[in-house]
Formats: sequence, structure tokens, C-alpha cells
Amino acid sequence: MNTLRGKFWIGILALVLAGSAFADEGLWLFNMPPTQILKSKYNFQVTPEWLEHVRLSSVRFGGASGSFVSPDGLVLTNHHVGQGAIQQLSTQDKDLMKTGFYARTRAEELKVPGMELSVLQSLEDVTARVKGAERPDMTTIEAAEARDKEIAAIEKEEGEKTGLRCSVVDLFSGGMYHVYRYKVFTDVRLVFAPEYLIAFFGGDQDNFTYPRYDLDISLFRLYENDKPYASPHYLKWSTDRLKEGDLILVSGHPGSTGRLLTYAQLEFLRDVGYPWQLANYERRRTALKYFSRRGAEAARNAQGTLFGIENSLKAVTGYQSGLLDRALMEKKLKEETALREAVRQDPEMEKLYGKAWDEIAQAQKAFASIYKTYRFFEGGAGFSTTHFSTARNLVRLAVEKGKPDAERLREYRDVALPALTRRLTTAKPIFDELEVFNLTDSLIQLQKEFGSMTEVKWLFAGRLAEDVAKELVAGTKLGNPEVRKSYLDRGLQAVYLSDDPMIKLAWLIDPVSRGIRKQYEQEVESVETRNGALIAQALFRIKGTTIPPDATGSLRLSFGAVNGYVENGKKIPYFTTFKGLYDLAAKNGYKDPYELPASFLSRKAKVNLDTAVNFVATCDSIGGNSGSPAINRKGEFAGVLFDGNIQSLPSRFVYTDTLNRSVLVHAKGIIEALTNVYDAKPLAEEILGKK
Amino acid sequence: MNTLRGKFWIGILALVLAGSAFADEGLWLFNMPPTQILKSKYNFQVTPEWLEHVRLSSVRFGGASGSFVSPDGLVLTNHHVGQGAIQQLSTQDKDLMKTGFYARTRAEELKVPGMELSVLQSLEDVTARVKGAERPDMTTIEAAEARDKEIAAIEKEEGEKTGLRCSVVDLFSGGMYHVYRYKVFTDVRLVFAPEYLIAFFGGDQDNFTYPRYDLDISLFRLYENDKPYASPHYLKWSTDRLKEGDLILVSGHPGSTGRLLTYAQLEFLRDVGYPWQLANYERRRTALKYFSRRGAEAARNAQGTLFGIENSLKAVTGYQSGLLDRALMEKKLKEETALREAVRQDPEMEKLYGKAWDEIAQAQKAFASIYKTYRFFEGGAGFSTTHFSTARNLVRLAVEKGKPDAERLREYRDVALPALTRRLTTAKPIFDELEVFNLTDSLIQLQKEFGSMTEVKWLFAGRLAEDVAKELVAGTKLGNPEVRKSYLDRGLQAVYLSDDPMIKLAWLIDPVSRGIRKQYEQEVESVETRNGALIAQALFRIKGTTIPPDATGSLRLSFGAVNGYVENGKKIPYFTTFKGLYDLAAKNGYKDPYELPASFLSRKAKVNLDTAVNFVATCDSIGGNSGSPAINRKGEFAGVLFDGNIQSLPSRFVYTDTLNRSVLVHAKGIIEALTNVYDAKPLAEEILGKK
Repeated sequence: MNTLRGKFWIGILALVLAGSAFADEGLWLFNMPPTQILKSKYNFQVTPEWLEHVRLSSVRFGGASGSFVSPDGLVLTNHHVGQGAIQQLSTQDKDLMKTGFYARTRAEELKVPGMELSVLQSLEDVTARVKGAERPDMTTIEAAEARDKEIAAIEKEEGEKTGLRCSVVDLFSGGMYHVYRYKVFTDVRLVFAPEYLIAFFGGDQDNFTYPRYDLDISLFRLYENDKPYASPHYLKWSTDRLKEGDLILVSGHPGSTGRLLTYAQLEFLRDVGYPWQLANYERRRTALKYFSRRGAEAARNAQGTLFGIENSLKAVTGYQSGLLDRALMEKKLKEETALREAVRQDPEMEKLYGKAWDEIAQAQKAFASIYKTYRFFEGGAGFSTTHFSTARNLVRLAVEKGKPDAERLREYRDVALPALTRRLTTAKPIFDELEVFNLTDSLIQLQKEFGSMTEVKWLFAGRLAEDVAKELVAGTKLGNPEVRKSYLDRGLQAVYLSDDPMIKLAWLIDPVSRGIRKQYEQEVESVETRNGALIAQALFRIKGTTIPPDATGSLRLSFGAVNGYVENGKKIPYFTTFKGLYDLAAKNGYKDPYELPASFLSRKAKVNLDTAVNFVATCDSIGGNSGSPAINRKGEFAGVLFDGNIQSLPSRFVYTDTLNRSVLVHAKGIIEALTNVYDAKPLAEEILGKK
Repeated sequence: MNTLRGKFWIGILALVLAGSAFADEGLWLFNMPPTQILKSKYNFQVTPEWLEHVRLSSVRFGGASGSFVSPDGLVLTNHHVGQGAIQQLSTQDKDLMKTGFYARTRAEELKVPGMELSVLQSLEDVTARVKGAERPDMTTIEAAEARDKEIAAIEKEEGEKTGLRCSVVDLFSGGMYHVYRYKVFTDVRLVFAPEYLIAFFGGDQDNFTYPRYDLDISLFRLYENDKPYASPHYLKWSTDRLKEGDLILVSGHPGSTGRLLTYAQLEFLRDVGYPWQLANYERRRTALKYFSRRGAEAARNAQGTLFGIENSLKAVTGYQSGLLDRALMEKKLKEETALREAVRQDPEMEKLYGKAWDEIAQAQKAFASIYKTYRFFEGGAGFSTTHFSTARNLVRLAVEKGKPDAERLREYRDVALPALTRRLTTAKPIFDELEVFNLTDSLIQLQKEFGSMTEVKWLFAGRLAEDVAKELVAGTKLGNPEVRKSYLDRGLQAVYLSDDPMIKLAWLIDPVSRGIRKQYEQEVESVETRNGALIAQALFRIKGTTIPPDATGSLRLSFGAVNGYVENGKKIPYFTTFKGLYDLAAKNGYKDPYELPASFLSRKAKVNLDTAVNFVATCDSIGGNSGSPAINRKGEFAGVLFDGNIQSLPSRFVYTDTLNRSVLVHAKGIIEALTNVYDAKPLAEEILGKK
């Protein structure tokens, strides 16, 4: 064994990999925090007590984030995170997106049907137990199934033992497994939301940009037994103006990053995944814009979906810009080559890990060959209507419930059922015209791509996509929550014999969908997990376990400095003010997307125009961090993260801090608006702890 | 408690029920034989040794019967029982149905691919264990599922313990459960078959009639390790001519009778079940006759199916004639009323059993309301092609194999898999033109009955049934046994992603089929079983357990006397002769269905014309008894049962011995034909034990 040579390569590798060691990189685990880095770079001491306090002050909002900001269960997040709830509470006569909402008394707070928030009570490493389920003689897919069953068993056991909702998180692509235990709140009430115009000031045009001036906040209150939840942990509010260079820490639920992906996986995204997604988003965006021109009601109904699509379109465009950046890809290749070379120099490592990259590359080829089928069928891209996803859930839930927990499709395991059931039984506004429109669009694509497939021919029967869509939407009764509930109550038998056309459709495509999913799991996912775990082990051996894992939607801690930057030679200041907000609106003639709501127009004189509205910081974040609190050195709430600038998007793959910034609403700006624009003094006082 | 009145009624009941106590009624269990009756009526002593010998000499042929007739594994059954194998071994050039077959040496014996025969090694009462799985707080369907799981567990355990194929038989509609343990033979070779013309002399016209002159026999040999199986038990051949009044005992596998059905169940058959079946058989028969006119090849291809349909048509017409006979129905009602009244007089019995009849009546109404859906979908009447049944088996087997044994659809449990797998992987002649024809006919009916159903609309897409059928049959590759095997090997994943149109069709209708099956099980079957068992218990308490159960396809013993009868004032002798055979052929100008094969025509001079060909006896039998040996007092093979006369058909519901006769081939006639018509002296000598 040429140890000398081995050591030499590891040395080179350390240099290559260490490039960002002291950048503000990392979506860190709460049980593996960046204590050393924070100490040496910011002279900030992370203690177990501090971590526990921040964790218990953090709130999970589905795929996004929030935090407790009062001892009475008050939770702050973004407006765009609360948007689903705000729309849901709107009626024909009262569009809360347009008017905003403020509950002056607790009695006026609006309960959001079906909404769930959760708080992470504890977490624990269970890697040994999960990996222990593998046996050396197992194939890749058998090992994946064995792990999966063990995970299901852990989730079930832990849930029964603690009464909490427990979920095993897969980190480092199967390199580590932690169990997360959540307390779940199901009585969530809307307290405050500003108007959409100010929450999303600048609209899609300014999304993922900076400077910004968005009051992207909403406030909810958690209740237990019909009383406000006495939150034992919450963030005290900072009244300080942040200064350039100030440290902030961000606690939230970043969704996913791809920094540890292999080069082949990046190529797959660049050449297959993202191009398809972008084309799909583009087409749907154009279609929905067209739909919105049908009138004010159509526009209002399409608003939520359109927002989501435009947001994704911009985000993926940004991610893809990173992959199309030769320098970034060269850097990735260089790092990977160095790591592989280091592995190759050590016969033991070579034997254990040497083939991992090639196997993952092979899996990418397999994925490319089934990608469209996977998206259209299992991904549902061929059937864009909420009714179809309801139907599929009813069909699959009924089938899967008959199986032992560990053998079910993951999303139908016991641990997932309360949330799913709540979702299925809650009334939600559905606009049939929009459903027909979306379904038609997707059916046209389906026919284009899979027109010769038996199921597609059966479904179309020679008709136009629009006629098929109309018949399906007109015929289904799944829009009625009572009907959905009745299927849940009656189970498999009712779903077998249902004559609801959407349920028939879900049955029709279920074999193909399950088949392609299984193929994906066998040929792609399990190969990626197995080999990703091997690569992670190689990394751990070479770099130790002080590297942060990719984001997985679980609670993470990141940090950075409040910091402006220079773009195209121009200095971009670290914060914006109310003055800038009013000026920008005026400059654009108060026209869309710079229209101001009546509240802001009428209260201008009362507002302290120098107050900061938004600010930027170098802290690492990605979609899912929306609503995350920014916590200052004193442990106070200093702002809420709501976006990243356009330069932050490639940080999905490579973090840099030159131009990459998170964009946040300033705590002071929130108080200013509540007090002087919205006359919400009692709410401001609750937040400030003056009540 | 009015015991006096109770006793009075039981007395009345005994009189009513005892009507046939000394008739030759009963398809008796081998572990509950009619020892007393045989002793008192025929002075015949049944011993355990005799029972064991007869049981181990009896052979199960799928749904029919046979027996060992030499120590070298030679098995005799009917030609119509062996017909499937004989057709299967035929080729374009060599139609064994037409030419007959005789293997002059063992080397010439033809192995039948996929054929299985079995011999009952032992049987045992497991009622306590099966019923013990029920708990008092269970609903009817829960109890049915619990019993079903216990049955599956018993079958699995017993199979593993004994290495035999074990199957639990449900007797008295759930009143008793016995486990049957079979040794299975899979190397079965054809030794001898006469020509179809003489085996089925008189054709459909004379089917279910008497006098008859059919050489309805075929001989197979069982092999083990490529050597003839040394059968430890076999029936020695009788060279005696049977005489009027001679006792014969019949050991075979009668399929099903309905003598213990309630009046409501008989009404259901009369008013719903049989009318539908008869119309279906009539229509298919007409269609197949029409198809046969396309030419000689078409006629040959359709022959097997047509034979089955005409046979069923005649049988069901006969059963229905019983139900349409007022006297029979009045007798049934009287018996039921007496039994119910006896139960009513005893408060304890009334509490336990009193509601059973009404609940069964309710289940009949439920069945009537779903009958057509059940037949067309779960019963497959909408999809009459062997390809569909293959496709369904592949789809369901793949799905069910993923479940624990006890939770599978019964026909996919481990105990059933070897036979199913063999069936699916064995090559068999399939005639696409006939498949299209049959499928078209069934699709026309499907559309007529269920044309507005989504799945049917999808399948038709506005086309004609014939075009749909053509596309399905032309597109499927399931006719190829290699393709079928490959699906079996690859499992669920391959079936999910198959593009075979028949597999797609099987998936398409599976939800409805499973749904209607479940509904049938819940609302009909489990109610019938639960309450049928209660009625059986009432019967046991009143009459003891000396009543024979209804036929269930399991090995049974029946008995009777060789006996002619008087029909329309004319004496019908108990046997027919070769002379009668030749005379009948001549009288009909040797024309269909009285055409004689060349062998019989050319060898007439050599045949002893006085030899008996067929004979009749009073012994109880029903479809499934075909091929059963008739055993004389000495324990010798005296003949083989192949039919019943037309008057025997209502004995499905009520046995009478006035006109009801089983029809058999005489042992002497068989030897005569082998020796003097077929020059099969070595075979005759093996049978006679002269070799």
C-alpha cells in the first residue's frame, strides 16, 4: 500500500475540499452544530441550551418554516407560506388576499380547517439500527427494502412510545439516519396578514431579486383545547437596527440542496430533469396567464397556482444557470476527481467505495430512459387536477391500509395518515373551470407523449383533451369533502366499486404508475442511496463528519453576516427602507406590480420612512427556509427570511458568499407596519412583550 | 319450555326427513361411511381396511375421477375426462380424438404436459380448529375471514409437515371442516383412448340418456422418476357379468349437490341463477354451432368447448326441471317447515338457529341484485377467452404473492400455486379465430348489459365488439408459454409495466371484479356459510351426524344396486350389449351421431355381441363422479361411471331411486373392446393381472 502517495492525495483533496471551510456555508444539523466555526469566525458560543431553545421556538409549516414570537402561541411566518390558508379563509365576498386580515380580538381569529403545524421536540441518531437491517448478501433493492422496513418500524415504535409524530430523516444520501420527533398542532388560527400587494410588492418581476420592499409576513396562533397554546419557548423581539456585519442565525426547514450530488447526477439534472421541468413550467405559466384573462374571478382563482409556477420557474432557472456555468461544473468535477483519486490511492477504500460514482452514473442513464413516464404517471404530470390527486390518494390509501405498515408506499404509512386524512377531509375551494383548464393542458401533453399507450387511448376514445377533461371534472364528486370522507370511512370496497370517473382514472393508471415507481426505486433511487452512502463514508473518513449534509426538509441551522454586496460595479446596500418602497411605487406610477394597497397609501404620513423594511445576509438557505426566523447574538428575533437573490440560486449546488444573499424582512419594519399602517398596536405589543 | 310439544315436532320431523333413509342416497364421507345402512340393506360389511384400500385406489382427475387398475400405475377414467389431454396431444396431422390412441409399448406412452393427478392419502376432522378461530364478537364477515385464515394456516402447516398437497374441505356449509392430504403425480402418460365416435356414441343427443352404448374410457399411466409408479393399491378386475340387484360401490369426486340448500336458495337458483346460465349456454351453443360451419378445422377447434357447453346445458336444464317440479319444491318446503318448526319449539335451539333461514333468504336477495355484475366481471362472462383468464391469473398471482398466504385470494395461496403454475406454463393449443369468436360474443353481451359503465366505454371506444376482440387477441402474446413463464419469473413489476393488451384488460376490470367479489363474499357467501352451519347444527342435534353432506368435489363413497327401471310403461333393461350398439348404428345409417369408427366396423365379426357395454345402477352420483370405479362385493372393478340418465338430474336437489340411474361402462365390455376391437391384448392382460 502506497501510504505516502495516499497521504499526498488526501492532502491535495483537503485543499480542494476546504475551499469553503470558513465561508458561511452549511445547513447544519441541530445535533451536529457548527460550534467551532461560529466560535472562531464570529466568536459566538453555541450551547446545548441555546440549541434547545431555538429548536423549540422553531415551527414547521408543511414544507416551510416559522417561529414562536410570543408566549401565547403566536407564530410568525411569511405571507407566501400562509397564502394557502389565507386563500382558504377567503370567500366570494371577502378576498383576504386582497384586503389583508387582522383579528383585533382573539375571538376574531380565524381557524384554518385542516392546517397542521409542528415543533421538533427531540432528535436522535438511529444510523446503526437502520443500516443494521442490511445484510451483506442482499441486493441493492433488497437492502433498500430492508432499511425502509426498519425505518417504518422505528417511526411506528417511536410514535407509540412518545405520542409524537416521528419521522426518520435520511442524511448524506443514506450515510446517516436520524429520528425526528414532532409535536403536532391542529388548531391553527389566522391572526394577521397584510394585503397581497404589499406582501408580494414587485410581483414575479422582483421575485428572487434584491433590493426588495416586501412585507412578506403573516401571523397565526396555535391553540390547544380551544385555548392559546402557552408556548414555553419563543423568540423575544429585537428592537435594534441590524448593522453591516452583524451575525444572524437562521433556524428553518430548507427543502433540498444538491451539493453532495455526483457529477453524473448534476449532468442528469442539467440535461434531462431541469430542461423538462422548465419547459413544463413555461408552458403552464403561459397557459395560466391566458386563463387569467378570462376575467377577474378567473385571475383570482388562478393566482395561487400561477404564483407557485412562476416561483418554481424562476428558482429552477436559477439552479440551471449554475449547472450551465462552466466554472461551477469544473469546480465540481475537480472536487469529485480529487475525492475519487484519494479513494483510489487507498486499496481498502477503493474496494469499499471505488465503484460508487460509476454506479450512480449508470443510475442516471436508467433514470433518463424512464424520466417522462415517471413524471407523467407516478408524478401525475399527465393529470393536473386536484381531483386526480384526491382520487389517487383515496385509491392508494384504501389499498395500502390493508398491508402491514412497513410494506406500504411510504406516504401511506401510519405516521403519515393523520395529516393525509385531515387534508382529504377538509373543505377547500376548487374552481372547476380552472381544474378543467389545467387538466386539459396536461392531457394534451400526455397524448403527445404517450398517445399510443393503451390506457391513454382508452381514456381519450378519439376525443379532444378538453372534452375528456370536462367529462372527468363534471362527473367527479370528489370536490365535496363529505364524499371524500365517505370513501375514507368505507374503505377499499367503496373505492373498488366507485363509479366516480376520477377514481376510475386513478385505478386505470395505477398499474403503470406503480410499475414505473418501482422501476425508479430499483434502478435509480436505491442505487443512488447505496452509493451515495458509500461516498459519504469516504468523505467522513477523509474529512470527518463536520461537513453539513444536504438539505432534506428537516430542521437546520445556518448563519451569516448582514452584508451588502457589489453587483455590476454597483454597491447594493444591506437594507431597504419604507422611503425606498414608496419611491419605487411612485416611480412606477403605482401600477402592477408596484401598486400599493390603500393602507400603505393612506398611512404614508404616519410611517417612519427611515425604518428598514428588508435586508440581506450571507447565511445559507434554500426554498423551505421561507419563514425562518433570523436570530441575533442576543437570541432575539431580528427578521424573517423570505427569499434569496438571483445569485443565491446556484448555491443549490455550490455555496459562495460573494453575491449569494438571503433576503429577509426586518423585525423593525414589521413593528412599524403593524403600528403605523395597520393600527395593530395590541399585536405589536404582544410581540414586543409589552402586554 | 314445552318439551312435550318439542318432542312431538321432532317426531313429525323425523318422519318427514326419514323418507329416504333407506334409499341408496348419499355421497358419503370416507371418514363417516354408511356402515349401518350397507350392513342392514345389503348385508355388506365396510371395514377400515376396505375403506383405505378403496380410497388409495381412487384417483382425482382435476374435477373428476378415476382409479388404479394395475400394480404398475395404470389409471382408468372416462374418455370425456381424458379429452383435454387427448386433444392436447393431438397435432394438425394426427387427431387422436378421431383416430384413438394405443401405446403398444411403454416407450410409446405419451406424456401429457401440465397434467396432474392426485391420490388422497389421509383425511382428518379439523372442525374445532377452524371454528375456534371465530370469536363471539365478530361480525359475519370477520368470522368468515378468521376461519379463512385458519384454513390457510392449516393447509400450509399440513403441507409443510407431510410434503403432501393439503386442502381443507368445507362440509355442511361450514358445519364441518376436514383436511384432505393428497399425493400429487405430475408425470402422466396417455396409454389408450378409443375414437371419439365410440366414446361419445350418440353424441349430445344421447348425452344424459339411457340406454347407451358408449366406450367412454381412457387409460393413463402415472410415472415417478421416469418409471411406472408401483401403485400399492389398485382394483382387481372383475370378469363377472353383473346381475340385476347386485351391489356396487362407487368411489369418486362428485362436484356439488344442493340437497341441504334452503328453500330460498333453491328459489334463487330457479329464478335467477339457472335462467341466466341457461340463456348463456343456449346462446353460446348456437354461436359455436354457427362457428363450426366455417369448416372442418373450425369444427374441430370448437369441439371441446361445444361439448362442455352442451353438456352443461343439458345438466342445468335437468337441474332446473327439478326446481320447476312443484312436487319437488313442495317436498323441500315441507321438510324445511318441519325443521324450522322443530327448532322453534325448543327455545334454546330457536335462539341459536331460529334466524338462519331468514338471513339466508336475505342473502339471496342481495345476490340477485349483483348477480350479473358478479358473473360478467368476477365470473369473467364478459371476457370469454383463454387469454383473459391467463392475463387475470398473471395479474392477480403477481399481486397476491406479495401478501401473506392467509390474506390472499384463495386460488393464489401457496397450496394452489404448483398446479396453477404448471397450468400457466404448459403449452396448449389455442385457436385465435375461435378466441376472437368467443370473446366477441361475450363482449356483445357485456356491452348490452354494462354499456354505460366507464370501463366498458373505455374498452369499446365506440368500436364494434368484434373489432375490440380482434385487436385484443391479435395483440396479446399470452398464447406463448414462454411469455407466460417470463411474466411468472419477473413478477409484479413486469405485470405492472406490461404492454400486453390482455394484461391491460385484466388490470382495467380488476377493481370492479374484486369489488363485486368482496361484496358477494360479504353479503352472500359469508351469510350462507354462517347460517348454513347453524342449520347443519340444528340438523345434527335432531338427526345425529349420520346424514351425508352435499357434494363438494372431495372423495365420496356411494352405493346402489344394478337395476333397470320402467319409463313410460316400458321396461328399460339394466344393461346394453355390443349387438344393441351395432343395431343402433345400422338403424341410423351409421350417420352422425351414430357413426361408427373404422375399428368397430371392421372388427364386428370378432366381437362377442352379447357382451355388456353399458349398465345402470341406483347409486347416487353427480357431475364429478365421471370416471369413478364401480366396485363389486369382492372389491373388484366392475365398471366405470360416466353419466346419469335424464331423470337423475333433479337428484341434485332430491335423491329418488324410482327412475334416477347412474350410467356406467361395464368392465367386461372394456376387455371385449380392448381384446377384439383394438388388438390391445397386452393392455387387457395387464388389467386382468395376467402379465
